[in-house]
Amino acid sequence: MPRAWNFSAGPATLPEPVLRRAQSEMLEWRDAGASIVEISHRGPEFMEVAAAAESALRKLLSIPDDYAVLFTQGGATTQQALIPLNFAAPGQPADYVISGHWGKTAMKQAAPYVATHVAASSEADRYRTIPARDTWQLASDAAYVHITANETIHGSEFRDIPDVGDVPLVADFSSSIASEPLDVSKFGILYAGAQKNLGPVGISVVIVRRDLLERDGQPRADIFDYRSQLKAESMLNTPPTWNWYMLGLTVQWMLDEGGVEEFAKRNARKAALLYGAIDDSGGFYRNDIDPAVRSRMNVPFFLHDEALEKAFLSESKAAGLIALKGHRVVGGMRASIYNAMPEEGVQALVAFMDDFRKRHG
Amino acid sequence: MPRAWNFSAGPATLPEPVLRRAQSEMLEWRDAGASIVEISHRGPEFMEVAAAAESALRKLLSIPDDYAVLFTQGGATTQQALIPLNFAAPGQPADYVISGHWGKTAMKQAAPYVATHVAASSEADRYRTIPARDTWQLASDAAYVHITANETIHGSEFRDIPDVGDVPLVADFSSSIASEPLDVSKFGILYAGAQKNLGPVGISVVIVRRDLLERDGQPRADIFDYRSQLKAESMLNTPPTWNWYMLGLTVQWMLDEGGVEEFAKRNARKAALLYGAIDDSGGFYRNDIDPAVRSRMNVPFFLHDEALEKAFLSESKAAGLIALKGHRVVGGMRASIYNAMPEEGVQALVAFMDDFRKRHG
Repeated sequence: MPRAWNFSAGPATLPEPVLRRAQSEMLEWRDAGASIVEISHRGPEFMEVAAAAESALRKLLSIPDDYAVLFTQGGATTQQALIPLNFAAPGQPADYVISGHWGKTAMKQAAPYVATHVAASSEADRYRTIPARDTWQLASDAAYVHITANETIHGSEFRDIPDVGDVPLVADFSSSIASEPLDVSKFGILYAGAQKNLGPVGISVVIVRRDLLERDGQPRADIFDYRSQLKAESMLNTPPTWNWYMLGLTVQWMLDEGGVEEFAKRNARKAALLYGAIDDSGGFYRNDIDPAVRSRMNVPFFLHDEALEKAFLSESKAAGLIALKGHRVVGGMRASIYNAMPEEGVQALVAFMDDFRKRHG
Repeated sequence: MPRAWNFSAGPATLPEPVLRRAQSEMLEWRDAGASIVEISHRGPEFMEVAAAAESALRKLLSIPDDYAVLFTQGGATTQQALIPLNFAAPGQPADYVISGHWGKTAMKQAAPYVATHVAASSEADRYRTIPARDTWQLASDAAYVHITANETIHGSEFRDIPDVGDVPLVADFSSSIASEPLDVSKFGILYAGAQKNLGPVGISVVIVRRDLLERDGQPRADIFDYRSQLKAESMLNTPPTWNWYMLGLTVQWMLDEGGVEEFAKRNARKAALLYGAIDDSGGFYRNDIDPAVRSRMNVPFFLHDEALEKAFLSESKAAGLIALKGHRVVGGMRASIYNAMPEEGVQALVAFMDDFRKRHG
């Protein structure tokens, strides 16, 4: 089949111009005499690619100078283990606000290293809401407060940055980074796996306020030390160069398209269109998340009759709309509509949903 | 410039058929409607790619069934930290045989977790030799004995597997895996970053005897637990799918070319040709490594007159031979001649070296 509208939650659809560029450079990158994936990470060619990617990311997200940017391996889950190792004393309390599956994962990875403390959780509400800030019970002497900015599976996202005073706010932004303007200075640490909004899987970004790097953390291998990684320009060992290169191309594509201001508008329109189709379906489709915190990136929805799910999936695929099956944790359907998903793709999905409803309603 | 003969130590040259295949599939992988890098790792398409890669690797290396294979992120350096965490009790002794730069790195990463013990080292000999087995002083109660099968920078490799009795032998095979037949059953754990002989950077392989996974190791995050990774089929979190796919293509290419028996022959011929050109140059070129342990993969060499290095590098590049500069730790030149480097490339290098010597000798 030709390229479909791909609603995968991650690894997710990439901008077609980025793929075409990577394709054209697959055997020879500029005048290097080799592909970008075949040359030394420490040579001038790749160092330029790496520096350009950081510079573009700093521009895209307006990252202040007092924040360092690391390009790391291991995905967001690995950062969830490294953050307590780098920023908390052994057994020190650390606050976790749990608004879905990934918040729980973050806490699980940290548990061997810190006294994880659930400051708030919407689990009893099946994560249909995000706990209001005034209900949080923060630990005293916490190393940080961790939130999941966007819950990819449950489909909720923080629409305001919570105020946690002087304690550093740490946020997993894997599935919503660069989807709208963001005040980085409100955070101690932001981190994100690249495979939703920043490019390909296999590389992650950690944005950290430099003064936090003065914390001793706890005993750890050098390869797990963010300070060592920063000193080595994220090249303490051989970095995933192709993935880094693709991230750079994707970030530059976002800048060329108009940056996060432009994507905020597109994403608002896409989300309004899709949630509108669900809400206006007379109960044929249903999304259970509190409208105030509905994710603009991941839209889970259910059909009024579970028996229709199979037909929905096979007919949507036949119509050129793929990866709409919901995560097994919640079931149903899910459409992920990251920056690289054009409005045309969401229009095609909504048209299909309307048609399916008429035929099966 | 067109594709050159690329002697990079890693990331290193890839087989051109693999690059062409990746290029042709960059926008659409089979009938998935998307690139392989845009689809879910847990979907049937990628699961098939992952399983095929493991199956091909098992065939290529004749990996016995009582060994598990993990595909992990973070490179060999990360495994050097994870191995003590998974297989040694806190503070337990672990033996390290140091035959070059990477042996030292391995020990450095392990130091926070185990009582690292230098069983033998050729540092005093500037790593021109590998310490003979009968000189090793093994610790009692060691969790394992670690060796570096091939030292990428210094250019030496073990030509025999040392007998360490019942203590598991752990080997970093990053730069020589699949270069010749190997008796995996002689090892407790073999690991390798992919970016020399197995494909692209960004993914590593860990081959571990299953009974060792019963060891408790020490407190660690779930993402650092090899048992959890095995249970999750190396997908505890989103794996680097494109890198895994490329590894699979590269391994399949090696099988199609005749497997490790065939590459052992090619590599022996390539190494003999290159070392011959050095040894027969009347002192114009020089390699300092004990001939009995010279690496067949990485050939460092020096010009008799350091002042000629610049000319050598610029003239070789002009002749379509790239990445010949030695590692800064040892200086001089280095030619890495992994499986993907055709004999024709080494012939071109040797012809250039002879010509350069005649012109500058």
